[in-house]
Amino acid sequence: MAAFIIANGAAAMGDDVTMFFTFWGLNALRKPENIKVKKSFLQGMFGKMMPRGADKLGISKMNFGGMGAAMMKTVMKQQNVTTLPELIQTAKEQDIKMIACTMSMDVMGIREEELIDGLEFAGVATYLGEADEANVNLFI
Amino acid sequence: MAAFIIANGAAAMGDDVTMFFTFWGLNALRKPENIKVKKSFLQGMFGKMMPRGADKLGISKMNFGGMGAAMMKTVMKQQNVTTLPELIQTAKEQDIKMIACTMSMDVMGIREEELIDGLEFAGVATYLGEADEANVNLFI
Amino acid sequence: MAAFIIANGAAAMGDDVTMFFTFWGLNALRKPENIKVKKSFLQGMFGKMMPRGADKLGISKMNFGGMGAAMMKTVMKQQNVTTLPELIQTAKEQDIKMIACTMSMDVMGIREEELIDGLEFAGVATYLGEADEANVNLFI
Repeated sequence: MAAFIIANGAAAMGDDVTMFFTFWGLNALRKPENIKVKKSFLQGMFGKMMPRGADKLGISKMNFGGMGAAMMKTVMKQQNVTTLPELIQTAKEQDIKMIACTMSMDVMGIREEELIDGLEFAGVATYLGEADEANVNLFI
Repeated sequence: MAAFIIANGAAAMGDDVTMFFTFWGLNALRKPENIKVKKSFLQGMFGKMMPRGADKLGISKMNFGGMGAAMMKTVMKQQNVTTLPELIQTAKEQDIKMIACTMSMDVMGIREEELIDGLEFAGVATYLGEADEANVNLFI
Repeated sequence: MAAFIIANGAAAMGDDVTMFFTFWGLNALRKPENIKVKKSFLQGMFGKMMPRGADKLGISKMNFGGMGAAMMKTVMKQQNVTTLPELIQTAKEQDIKMIACTMSMDVMGIREEELIDGLEFAGVATYLGEADEANVNLFI
C-alpha cells in the first residue's frame, strides 16, 4: 500500500513512475480467481499458500489472525482512504509502468496469465537501468 | 532505530535531514501517557493495541515475547549505544525536521495532541517534494 | 538475497557497488562454524539465538517453521537460481565492497573473526559518505 500511495502521489505530481515487483510483492498483482497453469509440485504448493490478489493481503504488522487487516479496511473506508485494489486501478489510469520480476516469477512459479493485465515483464537489469536515471528510488 | 541513527549521523555531518513518519513509524512518536481524545470505536481499539512511545517498541526480529527487546536494551546500555528516546532527543537538538503523515494519522486514529511536540504534519506530496531534492532518500 | 541479487546485477553492469550490513544483515556474513571469542553473557545469548551464516537464514515471509526456506531452496535449485552463499561468492569475485557496521557488531557482540573474510569494518559516517555520491541507494 505504501508503494502505491507514493507512486500514485508522484504520478499525480507529473513524475514518470515505474514500479518493479519482486517475490511477495507479486502477490498484490495476482488475479483473484484460480488460473489453471502447469507447475511443479513445489511451485503449486507455493501458489496455494500465498495470498491471491490485492484484496487477500494481510498487513505487515498487527495482523492478529487477519483481524488487523479487516479493522484497517473498515477504518480506511470510514476515512475515505482508497483501498489497495482502488490504488492499483488509479496506478493503471495514471500510466504508472508496473514491471513483474521474471526471476521472482520463476522461483515462485507464477505465470503471466495468473497476474492482472497491463503488466510488463523484465529482470533486475531493467530495474537497475530505470533506477539509475531516477530521481527518487525506494525499496519498500 | 536505524532511521534515527542514519538521520542523526547525516545531521552531524552537516546535511539537512527530513524524516517522514507513516503508519507503524508513528508509534515511535506517541507520548507515553494516555491522552484523552475523541475516536471512533475501531480507532480506539487500534490505539490500545499499538505500542505507545519509543520506549515500548519491540524490535523487528528476534522478539521472543519481548525478551529480545529487553536484551537489546541492556546490551546497548553496556555498549554505550544511545536508546531510541535518546536518539529522538538528539534528532530534535540537531534540528532534524520530523513530519508525521496526516493520512496515516487519519487511518490509525492518532491525533496531533497524542504525539510528541515539535513535529510538522503533512501528506505524501510534501514527502515527494523533499525526496525529489534530496541526495539520499531511504524507505526504512 | 534481494540485496545481493541487485548488487551483483549492478556490478555486472559495470557499476561500483558498496554494501553496508547492519544488525540482522550481519548474520548473512557469519562463518558457519562456532568461533570461540570472549563475549558478555547477553552477547553470547544473542550469538546462540541468531542464525550463523548464509545457509542458515530463513526467508522474510512464509517461513512455516523453516519449511518455506527449504521449499524455496529446492525450487531455486530446480530453476537454476543461485543460492545466497553463491551470491556472496559472486559479489566477492565482482569486487563488491562489503562493509560490516561496527556499531551493530558491538550491540550484537559479533567479532571480526566470526565473519567471513574480505570484509571492511566501518560506521554510519562511512555509509553516508558513500550514499551521498551514489546514484542508486537502497535500504533493504
